[in-house]
Amino acid sequence: MAKILAISGGVGGAKLALGLAQLLRPDELTVCANTADDFTHLGLRICPDLDTVMYTLAGLSDRARGWGLAGESWQFMEQLRTLGGEDWFQLGDRDLAVHVLRSQWLAQGLPLVEVTRRLCQGLGVAHALVPMTEQAVTTMVDTAEGELAFQHYFVRRRCEPAVRSLRFAGIDAAQPLPLLLRLLRDPALDAVLICPSNPFVSVAPVLALPGLRQALLDSAAVVVAVSPIVGGAALKGPAAKMMAELQLPVTAAEVARYYGPLLDGFVVDECDRAQASWVADSGTRCLVTGTVMTTADDKVRLAREILAFVQDLAQK
Amino acid sequence: MAKILAISGGVGGAKLALGLAQLLRPDELTVCANTADDFTHLGLRICPDLDTVMYTLAGLSDRARGWGLAGESWQFMEQLRTLGGEDWFQLGDRDLAVHVLRSQWLAQGLPLVEVTRRLCQGLGVAHALVPMTEQAVTTMVDTAEGELAFQHYFVRRRCEPAVRSLRFAGIDAAQPLPLLLRLLRDPALDAVLICPSNPFVSVAPVLALPGLRQALLDSAAVVVAVSPIVGGAALKGPAAKMMAELQLPVTAAEVARYYGPLLDGFVVDECDRAQASWVADSGTRCLVTGTVMTTADDKVRLAREILAFVQDLAQK
Repeated sequence: MAKILAISGGVGGAKLALGLAQLLRPDELTVCANTADDFTHLGLRICPDLDTVMYTLAGLSDRARGWGLAGESWQFMEQLRTLGGEDWFQLGDRDLAVHVLRSQWLAQGLPLVEVTRRLCQGLGVAHALVPMTEQAVTTMVDTAEGELAFQHYFVRRRCEPAVRSLRFAGIDAAQPLPLLLRLLRDPALDAVLICPSNPFVSVAPVLALPGLRQALLDSAAVVVAVSPIVGGAALKGPAAKMMAELQLPVTAAEVARYYGPLLDGFVVDECDRAQASWVADSGTRCLVTGTVMTTADDKVRLAREILAFVQDLAQK
Repeated sequence: MAKILAISGGVGGAKLALGLAQLLRPDELTVCANTADDFTHLGLRICPDLDTVMYTLAGLSDRARGWGLAGESWQFMEQLRTLGGEDWFQLGDRDLAVHVLRSQWLAQGLPLVEVTRRLCQGLGVAHALVPMTEQAVTTMVDTAEGELAFQHYFVRRRCEPAVRSLRFAGIDAAQPLPLLLRLLRDPALDAVLICPSNPFVSVAPVLALPGLRQALLDSAAVVVAVSPIVGGAALKGPAAKMMAELQLPVTAAEVARYYGPLLDGFVVDECDRAQASWVADSGTRCLVTGTVMTTADDKVRLAREILAFVQDLAQK
């Protein structure tokens, strides 16, 4: 069918990744997750986006809650609270096994890509899920309350402080996962899909990896982004609030403008048809369709339409 | 009433500690636990004897199973197994909170005594529970299968390999917890009770700490041991099997002989009355009573009889 690299943050990206995984063979899809949200908490290395994609691809994610495992129990958290441990970040009993094993394997010197491969194998995820880099990159959010590490902003402070700017600590010393650069140079790669994830904190760290943006521009593959902004709002997470605070128009077109010359195509929701024509005017072809993925069918249908769009773009 | 230092291993010692804790005020009892069984597993620092005593004093221990917390759940272990993690050491979901917090606090530089104090405080344990030392000491068991770290011998290999000898790696560089030496020098200390724990792997590491044995001999406090061997068997754990493999008679009297000149008094079970007379012949006074602690009443009764025995010894 097609050889695809999907760049994803958490929930929204994971949904599209699941749709793609149901249409593509394991050797046809690689999902690269943002790791700039990763942090060390209670001595454990936690990779929220990798885990959300992994759990989603494994069919184990809690769809109602939007993070973690379905049917999770919370005995650990309850006891942690009793003992006076930091309890602002929820760790389910089963989820904890991932963090403990990852921390142990990393401490033993295994690279994160191999740790992730093992975890995925254990959960029966057949498609390749990889971190954007092996190096530690940390999204720092400059807010009215001072600079906060991402999870402190996102979870502890529930995205309440107004965002003034963002930086990715460690990005200059980080390198894209070598596999990503190889994929982008591979003439067999058909497309890079930027999933409907937060452009500023989920996708931007990937694009900010030294050499990655140029590799995308140089790649023969078409690059298509799916707007996470639908009808002037984000379906999940602080993307819309963040855009407003950064003095940007909260529109799908602004997302396309943000990705700029990287894009060959852009996918916007039906309710943003007007946005699509503005984007098309600037030379980027648009697919207008239902982008809200509620059911399993939604995910597969959107993935199928995007793959057709990609084929169409490649033929031009 | 009395100022008492109890030296304890796991289950048997913890039971007596609980009996003592119900008779003595927090400022009258300090329980020192063996830490030579401690190990790092899955990147977490685990202190089995400290935890068994802590859970027992908190009234939270699982009496039927003999370790861990009552009403524990095992979601973490199940997922760990799914992910291919080492699953020979059982870690309950609530128990895990102790190991994660301890590991975090130790990594932050807190001494184990302070970590233990915080954990005890969180669980409502009022009496002082302290580790024997701040330094890492590891019981190594030389067996027919080669040398095994204690938990590998005890849990992973279920005490099956025959024991040829024991050593306490790190003991020469370890120091007794300063509090222990202060207590032993304190003229107000009435007694040191060696709980009915395994003499070779639970009590021996404490006694092997540089200076500790001499401090016991020099102390004005009476020293009383409770035999963990009852009717030629151990109530729990490998003490009897180990004695046989070490070519020692499996008797209470042999335990008294093992502690030798440290002892002012020795407590043996009624079924070992004959043993008591042999011990008494060597000059160590004996208390003969029911030492099997099944009910809560058993623990308090034994503790009360031992405290009376101690008073009696102190008056000689």
